[in-house]
Amino acid sequence: MKLIRFGEEGKEKPGVQTEDGKWLDVSAFGQDYNEDFFGGDGLARLTDWLKENGSNCPEVSKETRLGAPLRRPSKMVCVGLNYAKHAAEGGMAVPKEPVLFFKATSAIVGPNDDLVIPKNSEKTDWEVELAIVIGKKASYVSKEQALDHVAGYVLHNDYSERAFQLEREGQWVKGKSCDTFAPLGPFIATPDEIKDPHALRLWLKLNGKMMQDSSTSDFIFDIPTQISYISQFMTLLPGDVISTGTPFGVGLGLKPPTYLKPGDVVELGIDGLGSSTQTAKAYGQ
Amino acid sequence: MKLIRFGEEGKEKPGVQTEDGKWLDVSAFGQDYNEDFFGGDGLARLTDWLKENGSNCPEVSKETRLGAPLRRPSKMVCVGLNYAKHAAEGGMAVPKEPVLFFKATSAIVGPNDDLVIPKNSEKTDWEVELAIVIGKKASYVSKEQALDHVAGYVLHNDYSERAFQLEREGQWVKGKSCDTFAPLGPFIATPDEIKDPHALRLWLKLNGKMMQDSSTSDFIFDIPTQISYISQFMTLLPGDVISTGTPFGVGLGLKPPTYLKPGDVVELGIDGLGSSTQTAKAYGQ
Repeated sequence: MKLIRFGEEGKEKPGVQTEDGKWLDVSAFGQDYNEDFFGGDGLARLTDWLKENGSNCPEVSKETRLGAPLRRPSKMVCVGLNYAKHAAEGGMAVPKEPVLFFKATSAIVGPNDDLVIPKNSEKTDWEVELAIVIGKKASYVSKEQALDHVAGYVLHNDYSERAFQLEREGQWVKGKSCDTFAPLGPFIATPDEIKDPHALRLWLKLNGKMMQDSSTSDFIFDIPTQISYISQFMTLLPGDVISTGTPFGVGLGLKPPTYLKPGDVVELGIDGLGSSTQTAKAYGQ
Repeated sequence: MKLIRFGEEGKEKPGVQTEDGKWLDVSAFGQDYNEDFFGGDGLARLTDWLKENGSNCPEVSKETRLGAPLRRPSKMVCVGLNYAKHAAEGGMAVPKEPVLFFKATSAIVGPNDDLVIPKNSEKTDWEVELAIVIGKKASYVSKEQALDHVAGYVLHNDYSERAFQLEREGQWVKGKSCDTFAPLGPFIATPDEIKDPHALRLWLKLNGKMMQDSSTSDFIFDIPTQISYISQFMTLLPGDVISTGTPFGVGLGLKPPTYLKPGDVVELGIDGLGSSTQTAKAYGQ
């Protein structure tokens, strides 16, 4: 199943994308894609509900804005430097265990919303990432059990302001949390749709030019390791998002480094998870 | 006004603490202390409602468990090293601008709930802190406007696992986000109750012995500076919590360093914000 949310920002309704690519409004199901949905066996309930009611669901026009395909999660945990070649381009050592940081959930937007370059930013950068949506509370989960806690997979652009992240005092969160820095979507694909999450091509183009082009087969830490590891330090709640790191090819690593400016168009995609496009604009414009 | 929440974990109801110290159940007001409450002028509405209905509110027994006095916020932003003497005890330089990190909101518990020492922890430490609750969305707010965005103040113990925070790869969040690591309360005091938030004594005792005893007058960055600064990097939403840093006297800074073990009793307080007590226990016991 592919979950979407559509409509005006802050008033999104839940929907599904059918196998033939149509968008259906499932707001009659009566629940948004939030912690209660994922934690309350919502995927199974929605699947059953669709068998009965799918043919009566209104079709949604493809002109409609897509929102992020889940309601604001309790947290968004990111794994840093999870592709060896990307660690090197940032001048950082390959980590011995996963590096974790948070992104403010207020940064989450729809997949094709504009990227707002923050005030005083000179180093806004891109990062295509595979993100995981948690389906079941996870605390001290073993690697063997970890995939049972996955509700689905989703495309994420982990926008990062490198000066805020690396050149101001302290922790990375400062450069990861600006509004619009977390476009998610177009849809969440449930695990049955993704045969092998460790063999997905992921790519990102800037103004039509390929900048990142890699595969999740290059992960340093695979998905079970990431989930199990994070769950040793905090409890993952249903609907929480883990972003699994970005491959080589970000602006920081170019010679000379290249950052986003108003008008730039960023397009990205992952096998089986669709694509998204953001246009950069200056704050307040 | 003093806001409390009481009852079983996950099923807390909203209440108020009256001037003579009674606890009143205000669930008939119809709204929990969440983003909609704080962002929707809830404090003013509740004040008006209490004038009409306060005398009919059921009194709550003092035997009742207190929960955190607000519903899970979108984020908890912490300011690190905001007292010069504390930065020194951790062997860190006094920062030139605020150091920010996040704490998972899944770590939030009631003020007197047990502290669970995480599995594999050997360095669980305490940090008494003044926390701020945001009352109004804050993005690119000036210092002059910052205090208009404060809904209230609350006592926080920013429990920290020093090995997870400082000795594992990467970012501090790993040592800040374990379950029970953020006891909040007993109550949120609205700004009218706190004459000068920059002249509050704050203290923490371990097994009856004073470990931290300082004043918010020793802040490196004052509250308007913190709010304004954070709002340059992310949008603060109503109900979000900012924890303003801890003074000298944490376990990490003792010679030799001293960390919590099962059975330890931690008591802390801030002028005008009451006190809280946590008993440490081992995970699973």
